Amino acid sequence: MKKERKKAVVLLSGGIDSATTLAIAMEKGFDVYALSFRYGQRHAVELKAAKRTAKKLGVKKHLILDLDLRKIGGSALTDDIAVPKNRNADEMNKKIPATYVPARNTIFLSYALAWAEVLKASDIFIGVNILDYSGYPDCRPEYIAAYQKMAHLATKAGTQDKNKIKIHTPLIRMSKAQIIRKGRDLGVDYGLTHSCYDPGVSGAACGKCDSCLLRLKGFKEAGLMDPVKYSK
Amino acid sequence: MKKERKKAVVLLSGGIDSATTLAIAMEKGFDVYALSFRYGQRHAVELKAAKRTAKKLGVKKHLILDLDLRKIGGSALTDDIAVPKNRNADEMNKKIPATYVPARNTIFLSYALAWAEVLKASDIFIGVNILDYSGYPDCRPEYIAAYQKMAHLATKAGTQDKNKIKIHTPLIRMSKAQIIRKGRDLGVDYGLTHSCYDPGVSGAACGKCDSCLLRLKGFKEAGLMDPVKYSK
Repeated sequence: MKKERKKAVVLLSGGIDSATTLAIAMEKGFDVYALSFRYGQRHAVELKAAKRTAKKLGVKKHLILDLDLRKIGGSALTDDIAVPKNRNADEMNKKIPATYVPARNTIFLSYALAWAEVLKASDIFIGVNILDYSGYPDCRPEYIAAYQKMAHLATKAGTQDKNKIKIHTPLIRMSKAQIIRKGRDLGVDYGLTHSCYDPGVSGAACGKCDSCLLRLKGFKEAGLMDPVKYSK
Repeated sequence: MKKERKKAVVLLSGGIDSATTLAIAMEKGFDVYALSFRYGQRHAVELKAAKRTAKKLGVKKHLILDLDLRKIGGSALTDDIAVPKNRNADEMNKKIPATYVPARNTIFLSYALAWAEVLKASDIFIGVNILDYSGYPDCRPEYIAAYQKMAHLATKAGTQDKNKIKIHTPLIRMSKAQIIRKGRDLGVDYGLTHSCYDPGVSGAACGKCDSCLLRLKGFKEAGLMDPVKYSK
């Protein structure tokens, strides 16, 4: 008798980290339910990248939810606040940047938790990372641990078995270069991904925002060519 | 010089508990920012009640966000699953009912947290209650405590001051009758509120779902008349 595969909800933005996380979840043998959000981000082109990646890697289902974070505001990613450009690593890590979206990962994980509960899935994957975390508080391991504890108390599943829900963060201590090498080994096509916070009308990456700079540095350190187009 | 009043985000559904919670936040001297959700609930008429209550009590701002929880499903409140009727207290408390919406309070609190961060508010009010909690896991004090801990790690504000964010649950140990008496003392007009999970086309309450039964019992025990209309 064929053993039923376990289900996992994977948060998928369309960038390098979430695409690699998705590939890792599949490698671990999960049936993947990918979850993306149209949240008023100025780089909504990343959703096209998420769709391409989900399709290419063969997920069971890809759900894109509409969230109106613009009504809440407070971020360069959703408001008319300038996206910081050409910052070095010191500047990126010194303070939480304008591209921080208030409570974004908390909101994203909460939807993942809801969907996991409906699917009777116990596993959620998120591609957060502390090394290249760009100063976002909701990318740290202590945050994820606290979220997981809360999630057990929040849900039917967790109430019945307190070790039930697991938030997986396979990239949390990997450098961007390590992530890229890992994804390449798993067959991720990074030409399908999108990272830029501030793409031009053509969809080409700016090459200057924190996200582009971290991506370019990662490919350089991995000794690989970045297959996406830059507007320069 | 006039001292600036502190801001609080208050989750407002339009029912008795959240209306009373809002009045308590105002009594404590907060400028209130009320937050409601159109999440695909079959009793969306409660949003009209939320608007009436917010206006009557004089909030600074009332934000209604659209969430697409129907795409996630899994609840009698958003799907075509029958709302349980005529259950007694034992039946209500024995197991988590079909009206449970997966991770709902977690999603609601996450938006409240995001808005609080943008407003530079440190206080969030939610009208959860353990006595009449109808079997929902995300209404328990241990859940709220875990949420608050996670919230500190999730946000800019919490990163800068770990005692910064406070989730207030003023009703958590009150009976429905105590809540109703408290609200009456604070001038809450319960004729403006709505509790029924399954209202008829006229908007009249069914009088038989868990929410109606708990409400009616509360008014009876408080020795007061329920001013809303029932369809019987």
